[in-house]
Amino acid sequence: MLKEECAVFGIFGREDAAQLTYLGLYALQHRGQESAGIITSDGEKVYEHKGLGLVSKVFDVETLEKLKGSIAIGHTRYSTTGLSRASNTQPFLVTCKIGKIAVAHNGNLVNIVGLRRKMEEDGSIFRSTMDSEVILHLIAKSKKKKLEDMIMDALNRIEGAYSLVFCTKNKLIAARDPLGFRPLSMGRMGDSVVFASESCAFDLIGAEYEREVEAGEMLVVDSSGVKSYRFSERGKNLSKCIFEFIYFSRPDSKVFGVNVDKVRRKLGRKLAEEAPADADIVIAVPDSSNTIALGYAEGSGLPFELGLIRNHYVGRTFIQPRQTMRDWDVRIKFNPVKGVLEGRRVVVVDDSIVRGSTMRKLVSILRDAGAAKVHLRIGSPPIRYSCFYGIDTPTRGELIASQKSIDEIKEYLGVDTLHYLTIEGLLSCVDDPQNYCVACFNGSYALKPEKGFAKDVFDKKSGYEEELII
Amino acid sequence: MLKEECAVFGIFGREDAAQLTYLGLYALQHRGQESAGIITSDGEKVYEHKGLGLVSKVFDVETLEKLKGSIAIGHTRYSTTGLSRASNTQPFLVTCKIGKIAVAHNGNLVNIVGLRRKMEEDGSIFRSTMDSEVILHLIAKSKKKKLEDMIMDALNRIEGAYSLVFCTKNKLIAARDPLGFRPLSMGRMGDSVVFASESCAFDLIGAEYEREVEAGEMLVVDSSGVKSYRFSERGKNLSKCIFEFIYFSRPDSKVFGVNVDKVRRKLGRKLAEEAPADADIVIAVPDSSNTIALGYAEGSGLPFELGLIRNHYVGRTFIQPRQTMRDWDVRIKFNPVKGVLEGRRVVVVDDSIVRGSTMRKLVSILRDAGAAKVHLRIGSPPIRYSCFYGIDTPTRGELIASQKSIDEIKEYLGVDTLHYLTIEGLLSCVDDPQNYCVACFNGSYALKPEKGFAKDVFDKKSGYEEELII
Amino acid sequence: MLKEECAVFGIFGREDAAQLTYLGLYALQHRGQESAGIITSDGEKVYEHKGLGLVSKVFDVETLEKLKGSIAIGHTRYSTTGLSRASNTQPFLVTCKIGKIAVAHNGNLVNIVGLRRKMEEDGSIFRSTMDSEVILHLIAKSKKKKLEDMIMDALNRIEGAYSLVFCTKNKLIAARDPLGFRPLSMGRMGDSVVFASESCAFDLIGAEYEREVEAGEMLVVDSSGVKSYRFSERGKNLSKCIFEFIYFSRPDSKVFGVNVDKVRRKLGRKLAEEAPADADIVIAVPDSSNTIALGYAEGSGLPFELGLIRNHYVGRTFIQPRQTMRDWDVRIKFNPVKGVLEGRRVVVVDDSIVRGSTMRKLVSILRDAGAAKVHLRIGSPPIRYSCFYGIDTPTRGELIASQKSIDEIKEYLGVDTLHYLTIEGLLSCVDDPQNYCVACFNGSYALKPEKGFAKDVFDKKSGYEEELII
Amino acid sequence: MLKEECAVFGIFGREDAAQLTYLGLYALQHRGQESAGIITSDGEKVYEHKGLGLVSKVFDVETLEKLKGSIAIGHTRYSTTGLSRASNTQPFLVTCKIGKIAVAHNGNLVNIVGLRRKMEEDGSIFRSTMDSEVILHLIAKSKKKKLEDMIMDALNRIEGAYSLVFCTKNKLIAARDPLGFRPLSMGRMGDSVVFASESCAFDLIGAEYEREVEAGEMLVVDSSGVKSYRFSERGKNLSKCIFEFIYFSRPDSKVFGVNVDKVRRKLGRKLAEEAPADADIVIAVPDSSNTIALGYAEGSGLPFELGLIRNHYVGRTFIQPRQTMRDWDVRIKFNPVKGVLEGRRVVVVDDSIVRGSTMRKLVSILRDAGAAKVHLRIGSPPIRYSCFYGIDTPTRGELIASQKSIDEIKEYLGVDTLHYLTIEGLLSCVDDPQNYCVACFNGSYALKPEKGFAKDVFDKKSGYEEELII
Repeated sequence: MLKEECAVFGIFGREDAAQLTYLGLYALQHRGQESAGIITSDGEKVYEHKGLGLVSKVFDVETLEKLKGSIAIGHTRYSTTGLSRASNTQPFLVTCKIGKIAVAHNGNLVNIVGLRRKMEEDGSIFRSTMDSEVILHLIAKSKKKKLEDMIMDALNRIEGAYSLVFCTKNKLIAARDPLGFRPLSMGRMGDSVVFASESCAFDLIGAEYEREVEAGEMLVVDSSGVKSYRFSERGKNLSKCIFEFIYFSRPDSKVFGVNVDKVRRKLGRKLAEEAPADADIVIAVPDSSNTIALGYAEGSGLPFELGLIRNHYVGRTFIQPRQTMRDWDVRIKFNPVKGVLEGRRVVVVDDSIVRGSTMRKLVSILRDAGAAKVHLRIGSPPIRYSCFYGIDTPTRGELIASQKSIDEIKEYLGVDTLHYLTIEGLLSCVDDPQNYCVACFNGSYALKPEKGFAKDVFDKKSGYEEELII
Repeated sequence: MLKEECAVFGIFGREDAAQLTYLGLYALQHRGQESAGIITSDGEKVYEHKGLGLVSKVFDVETLEKLKGSIAIGHTRYSTTGLSRASNTQPFLVTCKIGKIAVAHNGNLVNIVGLRRKMEEDGSIFRSTMDSEVILHLIAKSKKKKLEDMIMDALNRIEGAYSLVFCTKNKLIAARDPLGFRPLSMGRMGDSVVFASESCAFDLIGAEYEREVEAGEMLVVDSSGVKSYRFSERGKNLSKCIFEFIYFSRPDSKVFGVNVDKVRRKLGRKLAEEAPADADIVIAVPDSSNTIALGYAEGSGLPFELGLIRNHYVGRTFIQPRQTMRDWDVRIKFNPVKGVLEGRRVVVVDDSIVRGSTMRKLVSILRDAGAAKVHLRIGSPPIRYSCFYGIDTPTRGELIASQKSIDEIKEYLGVDTLHYLTIEGLLSCVDDPQNYCVACFNGSYALKPEKGFAKDVFDKKSGYEEELII
Repeated sequence: MLKEECAVFGIFGREDAAQLTYLGLYALQHRGQESAGIITSDGEKVYEHKGLGLVSKVFDVETLEKLKGSIAIGHTRYSTTGLSRASNTQPFLVTCKIGKIAVAHNGNLVNIVGLRRKMEEDGSIFRSTMDSEVILHLIAKSKKKKLEDMIMDALNRIEGAYSLVFCTKNKLIAARDPLGFRPLSMGRMGDSVVFASESCAFDLIGAEYEREVEAGEMLVVDSSGVKSYRFSERGKNLSKCIFEFIYFSRPDSKVFGVNVDKVRRKLGRKLAEEAPADADIVIAVPDSSNTIALGYAEGSGLPFELGLIRNHYVGRTFIQPRQTMRDWDVRIKFNPVKGVLEGRRVVVVDDSIVRGSTMRKLVSILRDAGAAKVHLRIGSPPIRYSCFYGIDTPTRGELIASQKSIDEIKEYLGVDTLHYLTIEGLLSCVDDPQNYCVACFNGSYALKPEKGFAKDVFDKKSGYEEELII
Repeated sequence: MLKEECAVFGIFGREDAAQLTYLGLYALQHRGQESAGIITSDGEKVYEHKGLGLVSKVFDVETLEKLKGSIAIGHTRYSTTGLSRASNTQPFLVTCKIGKIAVAHNGNLVNIVGLRRKMEEDGSIFRSTMDSEVILHLIAKSKKKKLEDMIMDALNRIEGAYSLVFCTKNKLIAARDPLGFRPLSMGRMGDSVVFASESCAFDLIGAEYEREVEAGEMLVVDSSGVKSYRFSERGKNLSKCIFEFIYFSRPDSKVFGVNVDKVRRKLGRKLAEEAPADADIVIAVPDSSNTIALGYAEGSGLPFELGLIRNHYVGRTFIQPRQTMRDWDVRIKFNPVKGVLEGRRVVVVDDSIVRGSTMRKLVSILRDAGAAKVHLRIGSPPIRYSCFYGIDTPTRGELIASQKSIDEIKEYLGVDTLHYLTIEGLLSCVDDPQNYCVACFNGSYALKPEKGFAKDVFDKKSGYEEELII
């Protein structure tokens, strides 16, 4: 599976800001499970708590009680820039000439190396390897006088994908990059203003979805209300990440102003249209491809069945069997339902294929369970290029579709037929196809990363490894 | 939801017995999440490790390494007899005249009070409040000479539901009560013999399902092979728990020799036949009623949709919001997919209703998300009576169907129409209806519990509360 | 060092019984660091909490709050009978015909094997390997009608060393074996009655020392007051453990009705009298031999100096250096004060020598620090025999004084001169020498253990190993 | 008690650098128990691990294994500047133009506010509130080309007390402030070079003490050997902290090139000379004043006795009794030995008095134990002024000697007589009295702190609170 980078959340004007941020992060947990953090302000003091692990592990009742104040921002993360470690948890909080300021970032910058090298030459020190720290340096170094101008000054110097929420002593600020790579929604909860990566966070806390933060827009919330600023002119086309619909976002969310579920259903129907199969049943690889599979079933007229049961008790700490079972790592996650599969010609629908190794094992599990035929249908085109905008893709050498032809993949996976959704088919499922980034499929990058760019460029530099505080 | 009581697992003749038992328990985790334990024997010594929590939390690599030997039994539990506490974890291991003997129990005995009172009068001491301890006392007190006879002697004195696995220095023993309330399967793994509550445990370790341990049968496995004993004559009818098909067992399992998935699909189709609905879509309450809902969709011809998304990150430690949201406990578990529900007439399929409070909140969540109509279809008859055979049912006063008429329930839940599967409909889904217990629906108990019976009879007796070792 | 077996504590008639027991156990922590437990009764229910580790680790505020009631008993233990493991923690609580009863035991029984074998033959089962479980079995099996008689019946069947406190729903009971091997004091705290292994526990909670529980006496405390029973006639001589004065008890305690500090000072003066040394200074091996060393300094007229500093941060978890330093395990515990030792002729006073390996390393550390001469003076006679009465002595083969002559020991340790206190000298320090057990020095056992006796006889039997609940 | 600020340790040229640093920190644990950290370099990468708590809790075997390389620095801390929290643990590691650099600091800077304000104005951001971060900023901002010059450049801009160790990819650097407030020793271990706050760390790892790092000296160790630099001319007098001899350092250490034990003995003898007492015995408040008390006993000719037993099991987590005992917090730490105290006229020797509250309770405990007279003798002059150089003194208002006359203190404590060592007496115990700081006694500060100075100046600024990662 591809790994989503992060989720951000922010709220202004609620006594229980930390509690609601906790709930918001909980709803956004699928976007990042490595660490979680919340920073709050009561107008006087700023409070911080961060930790490695799931939201429910990082926070407990006492901790939330200590996070006082009516402004809060939160973050859950899967590492993109910066290896997994304690000093790379977000939000990132510092003190500078404007006092305390904290930021939470979803996305990935592509001109960070040069910026950071330059700042190091000028005498700056860095505690982490995160983009967020560079952004805060830029703000602190801005010659502008007003906080809003300082932030826009900084945003105009960075390039890449970013959906950001900032917290200061008395303001909550949200901003989204000019190409709009990552989603960021705004909601209302009575007089309070809320921001979140996906609208499912609003549903859980009972906030109303209002609109998407626009690409190139900065929104500043304080006691005088909400002000909108444009720090960048709207260009011709945007570069919204189409993978949010394919895999990352929850089906009950709105992202980019659209119901994820609706698009995902279309993917399945389109897939059925492009590649029908002579089969008895349609099954999904649960849970992420359920909606696409339902769309396929609907489009193809074949019955949808539960052919694989997912074990939700799988944790990080599962112990590898001593005498290795074949495919055990996939087997402990998915168990085939023999009663469904035996003797049937099965269409298996998955959202995407990255390295292909999991799917290969899954196919062998289906065959062992008696599937007569396995027709694989993928709800997205072949992933052939790395993402520089916040998705953790492996190197091109590890992407199976970058190394093998479709026929070779079919053979490698051991399926009877294989079809990937076409780029055209994919884009036909959204209303404004020109505004979506499909670079991972066709290599057409809207923003070229600077030379030497790599996700862990600063980690590799001189070596750095940090353990958890016990 | 009703709570399953327990799972048992046993294996003979594998060097990696503890590891395989760990995997087996992991596959059976859905049957009990309160505690887990494994006991092994290397022919000389007996090793024990038990703890509160999920299998993956209780065991780590070092612990499994210390559980030496090629015989192992394991247990995961949700408390039925005996409150939740450290001294009530299983398997229960003691030393007596035949040396070390351990037992793991799935089920519930109904004549335990009298037996225990009598033994106390005779000078016995009890360390726990579990049925298992009473069984071991009976074995130790038997006047028979051979272990097999001693165990059968004990089994002939107990009444109720029991699927048991025993482990001694050099034997693995499995037994099932004469009415066969609880399932217990036997499998093979090369020369090794395996027992498990459900066959999904065999799938995970790569063992082959062989057959069900018969009601009234005891199987003894040692280095000379497997021997079968009958400790009770087969009566006319059995009392297999039909709830295993409705809710408890995993759909990928075989229990009572039957594919769970197949029966569960029939429940859905039967339900559609008994109670069609004037609706647009069918949705399930994920994940337990997915298969029934698919059956309903198939039977009714209505499309199956994903209308509720379940958050699998919910843990025990979730923190209650300060300013209580309406229905927050259900909301954090299920989020409605507005895109699916809005303006639709929805058939909601669930497996059963116990108290009704969760369903009531769920209905209100569906309405808030825009469902035009809510037609509730339940894949089992109204639960009106408590179970004495190993399911943790609340008292009759808490069972909604025992207190209210169907119309009143409909009103309480706020649904437009409501239908429970009939007992006849339910029984029509299995091949041998006369062999199933439906006492929770009609109060027709095959074995009457002794006077004064209550799940926690010994806990209440004189007060007893034990904390976890930190 | 020899390891003390255990401490017991009991209190009747205080609302904060659990809290005071916690404090009492804390004061008695030096007698056992492996596990701790408290059992309380509120007259209706009995509450239990036990765990492995120090008192301050096993209990926290919430746990103590849950241990309700005005009767409590507590225990800290270093294993004597029964290997170190969770099921061997005390107090041991069971249910039997008289309801709940718990016991905490300091000492060691010598006729346990036969008793237990007999009970196993008669159909009893055992969950632990502790003497305490056997005692509870005997009580439960007694044909007497009254609790007091049942307990005395049981005590008359056991032989060995025991200072016991029992707790039932509404009684606190203390008893001490007829030969009085182990100490047990009674105190008062207003109307409340307290028992403890040493009087330092009374000091901490503010109770007044009243008297020693007599050998062969049982004291029963309930709402009607305190009643004394004799379950055994007073014989000619007692067998009080003289090692309590040499090493085990705290110098601020009274045991056997005598100030430990006073006796310990006499040991030092006697040692100086028996073996003066041509030296410049006297140093102790801190902290246990401080008082003896002060006595030696006083007796000899030599100045007492702090030549060794003990690091009190040493915990169980100290990590062994990769490239082993010579004597590192002793070095991390004791650092020599070069300014004190350099060029000095040093008298080193220690309380006893068991295997000799630690002392050997210590001598080499002192020499490295520049000591010109090392004269070793031991405040007790050579330990040549194992203890069967509750002290964890190694086998005779491991006792250096059982294997080597004094001259050989001197050579092995690398000291210039060596003197052990004589048995006569030792006994001259107490008022009633005929009432003390010196079997570890001269092999003259008041009670011969039964054939086959060994500390871990039941653990060895058929192997048994139990892990901590994580 | 006053709290020591910190300990630092550094080593160059050992394969097991992390292990030896662990041992070194362990030996220095008495100087700081709040947090511990180690940073290592293998010439390519830099490794970090830090945490809150004792050294033995923060590190385990796996962690030490991960800290690769032959250069290491370590730190244990009690907070002086910067409140207690995770982001204020040391060593502090950053990346800047010279690559990775880490620093560990013992002491306190007095011109930090101005420096930091200026840097903030210039666009710097701060992650912690520690002096160490400011030092690293200054190094990174230096216009010099060579690392050595950059560091000296930075050191010339800071004022106050500092003993520092730095670690880069391939160098270990130590430096001490021009007035030499805090100790810092250099040792050798074969070809390896070692630095430590006190020489007891050398003893434990088997290194040889070589000399004190001089005030105003910087030592750079790399593969070409050790180079010494002077970054500040030697002034007339130094300001070595005389409290290192009175209380902080271990008696087995050398600090400032002198055996602590020797000076501490002199304090006791001088005290006896200045203030003899008509008494029977001398007792110490263990363990810190043992050596002074022995000196007093020697000087006065009175016998030294163990009148108070310290319970070394006291941890941070001790639970306060529900019904508060009088003086319970002191009682659980110290138990009086009645046998020693009863009816005796006692000289109690302690090293210093800060607030007086502990001593007051201790006196009442001694009286309760029967002491006929209590003559208090303090091995240092009255503490009347706060320390700005790295000792955590309370505000002047909390210092009893700053608020009350000696007679009033005598009355408050409830002692019969009271004597503090005179400043002259104190200084007569060291060879070069002009080189010692006694500002806490007479307010004569060698370096005045800048206006607005306060230990937690940056914490108070805009509020900042950070929780531990759980």
